[in-house]
Amino acid sequence: MEDTQSKSDFRKVAINKVGIKNIQYPIAITNRRGIRHNTVGTFAMYVNLPHDQKGTHMSRFIEILNEHKDDLTLLTVERMIESMKEKLDAEQAFLNVSFPYFLEKEAPVTRSKSFMNYTVRIVGEIVRDSVDTILEIDVPVTTLCPCSKSISEYGAHNQRGLVTVRVRFNDHDAKNPMDIDDLIHLVEQTSSCEVFALLKREDEKYVTEQAYENPVFVEDLVRDIALSLSSEKRITWYSVEVTNFESIHNHDAYAYIERDKSNSSHAHAFESANATSVAHS
Amino acid sequence: MEDTQSKSDFRKVAINKVGIKNIQYPIAITNRRGIRHNTVGTFAMYVNLPHDQKGTHMSRFIEILNEHKDDLTLLTVERMIESMKEKLDAEQAFLNVSFPYFLEKEAPVTRSKSFMNYTVRIVGEIVRDSVDTILEIDVPVTTLCPCSKSISEYGAHNQRGLVTVRVRFNDHDAKNPMDIDDLIHLVEQTSSCEVFALLKREDEKYVTEQAYENPVFVEDLVRDIALSLSSEKRITWYSVEVTNFESIHNHDAYAYIERDKSNSSHAHAFESANATSVAHS
Amino acid sequence: MEDTQSKSDFRKVAINKVGIKNIQYPIAITNRRGIRHNTVGTFAMYVNLPHDQKGTHMSRFIEILNEHKDDLTLLTVERMIESMKEKLDAEQAFLNVSFPYFLEKEAPVTRSKSFMNYTVRIVGEIVRDSVDTILEIDVPVTTLCPCSKSISEYGAHNQRGLVTVRVRFNDHDAKNPMDIDDLIHLVEQTSSCEVFALLKREDEKYVTEQAYENPVFVEDLVRDIALSLSSEKRITWYSVEVTNFESIHNHDAYAYIERDKSNSSHAHAFESANATSVAHS
Amino acid sequence: MEDTQSKSDFRKVAINKVGIKNIQYPIAITNRRGIRHNTVGTFAMYVNLPHDQKGTHMSRFIEILNEHKDDLTLLTVERMIESMKEKLDAEQAFLNVSFPYFLEKEAPVTRSKSFMNYTVRIVGEIVRDSVDTILEIDVPVTTLCPCSKSISEYGAHNQRGLVTVRVRFNDHDAKNPMDIDDLIHLVEQTSSCEVFALLKREDEKYVTEQAYENPVFVEDLVRDIALSLSSEKRITWYSVEVTNFESIHNHDAYAYIERDKSNSSHAHAFESANATSVAHS
Repeated sequence: MEDTQSKSDFRKVAINKVGIKNIQYPIAITNRRGIRHNTVGTFAMYVNLPHDQKGTHMSRFIEILNEHKDDLTLLTVERMIESMKEKLDAEQAFLNVSFPYFLEKEAPVTRSKSFMNYTVRIVGEIVRDSVDTILEIDVPVTTLCPCSKSISEYGAHNQRGLVTVRVRFNDHDAKNPMDIDDLIHLVEQTSSCEVFALLKREDEKYVTEQAYENPVFVEDLVRDIALSLSSEKRITWYSVEVTNFESIHNHDAYAYIERDKSNSSHAHAFESANATSVAHS
Repeated sequence: MEDTQSKSDFRKVAINKVGIKNIQYPIAITNRRGIRHNTVGTFAMYVNLPHDQKGTHMSRFIEILNEHKDDLTLLTVERMIESMKEKLDAEQAFLNVSFPYFLEKEAPVTRSKSFMNYTVRIVGEIVRDSVDTILEIDVPVTTLCPCSKSISEYGAHNQRGLVTVRVRFNDHDAKNPMDIDDLIHLVEQTSSCEVFALLKREDEKYVTEQAYENPVFVEDLVRDIALSLSSEKRITWYSVEVTNFESIHNHDAYAYIERDKSNSSHAHAFESANATSVAHS
Repeated sequence: MEDTQSKSDFRKVAINKVGIKNIQYPIAITNRRGIRHNTVGTFAMYVNLPHDQKGTHMSRFIEILNEHKDDLTLLTVERMIESMKEKLDAEQAFLNVSFPYFLEKEAPVTRSKSFMNYTVRIVGEIVRDSVDTILEIDVPVTTLCPCSKSISEYGAHNQRGLVTVRVRFNDHDAKNPMDIDDLIHLVEQTSSCEVFALLKREDEKYVTEQAYENPVFVEDLVRDIALSLSSEKRITWYSVEVTNFESIHNHDAYAYIERDKSNSSHAHAFESANATSVAHS
Repeated sequence: MEDTQSKSDFRKVAINKVGIKNIQYPIAITNRRGIRHNTVGTFAMYVNLPHDQKGTHMSRFIEILNEHKDDLTLLTVERMIESMKEKLDAEQAFLNVSFPYFLEKEAPVTRSKSFMNYTVRIVGEIVRDSVDTILEIDVPVTTLCPCSKSISEYGAHNQRGLVTVRVRFNDHDAKNPMDIDDLIHLVEQTSSCEVFALLKREDEKYVTEQAYENPVFVEDLVRDIALSLSSEKRITWYSVEVTNFESIHNHDAYAYIERDKSNSSHAHAFESANATSVAHS
């Protein structure tokens, strides 16, 4: 049976990335405390293709996914990326995975328990034997506007906001197991108030007053989280963005900060997360 | 050239609806004041198919769309539906169209002008020579929680909410031209405060205080809008639903009311909008 | 602390549905063979509210969700709905849940194993002590056009299609455990060819030829699945819809059939799934 | 009235981007032939904020949007970005706008006319007085698999694909008016077959056979479009990505190429579109 993909190509055009995307797969991930979470991942997996090769072998991506689906951590994602590079005979390999993640939380006064959902993403690539991974987390929060509070006789507009934090850790010890829960707590403590799935009346009084006492502009929140991430020694690079679903508008307020704490200039393509943000935010 | 679609079918299974969906088309609509809006519609167009007919002729839907795209009103949508029934030789025909609609609004204090976006839908069908159309509008608003205000020392959680109103008018005079603007105003006046694209500091003080003075539960807002729609004589049937993007949760609060003011029982399939809501809200 | 929600309301407007929506929760479901699947559910939970009651108690929905999250079947969803009715002191209660579901499949020739994702929904309500549930499944398939095959010298346009089947079962024995896998197989066998996550070259030859040998219009596929569902005795009512993401257009082809096999007329609101489809498809 | 935003900030954290996003606005754009299109734009508008300034003035973005909404071209978008930099007293300014765009097309045999929809985006920024804009277009096409054709007795799997082209032009003459239509034609000519809203039977025979005669892997299509863009002298930089909605899978195939034809190294942040693609594709 003819192997069309393995033929030679004469157009002299190398392909930066080729592979599969939007594939859902059942996965298990393990957090810092060794607790296993069963969830559902959505993957993209690519490799580069030299100019003289006609096509890649798409089915191998699924085979690699199949092998690793039962234990995803930052470290095992790096293994997957190395495996993609090797089995597809490539120089570069790229993997993204996004999944819902849950934390059991207690309401602030009544201590009623419920689960809050967060979206977590791992973005990784290997270029010239060096693997690079970024951990991304979306954390919903409450934000209350300082300007609105300051100029109004009473009240202040507030809304649900979404914080996205992206971090690089400085070594493998910090990566396995992942620090998802700590990053979530760091963001939640910095907002006007954290959000919960279950609040009783006493809790609602608490969160309303706490938000009123802690007004933050989108600019304040992004700066305060940046300061917290700057002081975390295991983090070598971060970006943080905040989107406020303004209660007084039908559009959103947005702020973005990025900082490379290592002074070295990384060779990797996705170093400039600013680029990402310009083109797509 | 063989016409496979026109062949006979022997399975004895009639098809309720067959046609095209998710087609975007440039359209012009005309509102009550005769003002023309250029916008972009997303259409679904279906007819029924008797048990003995193998297929429908999909290209005819596009031809009908092509003919009517430059002047959409509730009345011309009814013409399109009649045309679908006739040209596709059907007993029933169904059409949905959804489009962004804009109103120029003035900020409450500074009178600064800006455009606010709303989503409008027209849903129509013809069954046994009787055409039935529903006008649907999504209106974003601010809602402030009365419980949060009442139990807290200061502040009150508030958020963007989305109101969806669906109405049937009692005759053609009311339908042409459509009353989109009036329905939007009716909803906006009933909320804690309307939302704007452009607010300066004086305006922000105004909307903050107005929302604090007009707290509404999702239950209050849905009831108040229901009362307003009940008192509108040209409206014979309505439903109203409110979704609050709660600032203290990562989920939404929801309420739904439906009322048939005519005592007659309509024969039409989509009479029970409740059904719609159960299955999909 | 004041209980604003429990106050009386004097507007004399009953609310059809009030509650929470778009809440994600970690869940476990059990299929017909007793196999447990850990997945993520997105819920909507509503009750009716009499005209003289000011508000509902939103936190109770989460408490009920919390209690049942570890074992969802059609039967336990019915328990949840009964519990909502009781704990919120309502006459009617409504619940929707949607979740990704996975089946391990073997490629048709090489028998390579991989997981395919499907979306499953359970939609239930209780009205006057009678609980009613519908099981919905989205099944992706390949469809190949008979007209294109018949009129062309070679080739035939084909594409990914999405089949949505909704069924009511005739008694509780059929509901517990759920028949998700059987419904998926029923749909997959009726299409031009089923789809897989992992196909090697021998498999790709097989699925290409199988699709060419089994051309189906959107009308054929919806009818063939309807016939299969008609012959399943445990199913008392069904609807089936097919959406083809046409490879030759930028819009979709669509067909819908619904059949009530019981001759009794159900009192329940969502009986007329046709209504659902008119308004939202 | 206190101007909280204008206060000083002492955290010493500069903000890369702050502003508004997800705002819909009615716009008019003008294409190369001077033809005006009324459509609907979705905007994001940001500026940088120095470390010692507390907040930006969000309402000014809307004022700038208001001024320019009636005439958008690549050149007027550059004016908007310069205006943002000036009126918000910033060093950097960023703007994205996305809108549906329509071309009237004739079916290949019957010459029946219909409108096809495309999504167009303009992404621009100003850094240190140098404005940089990218034009992006999404073009739906048909792709037919060469491997499937080659190994199968008859038939070949094919599907709708989506091509996204991003280009930088070499000077202002090329930018005003924009070359949207030419870029669309360039992509459509390179695919297995272009797609249409309206095809009659004779046309369907034509497009089926044309696709069968022109099989392309996702790798072939991305390379052929890259070659076409390389030979366009007015284009100094481009990227092209193809996503195939595989008819035999429930996931997509993907390929990406990027090339900077100027040998100079641009200073601009979004130069490395590769970065964008790693993180978000």
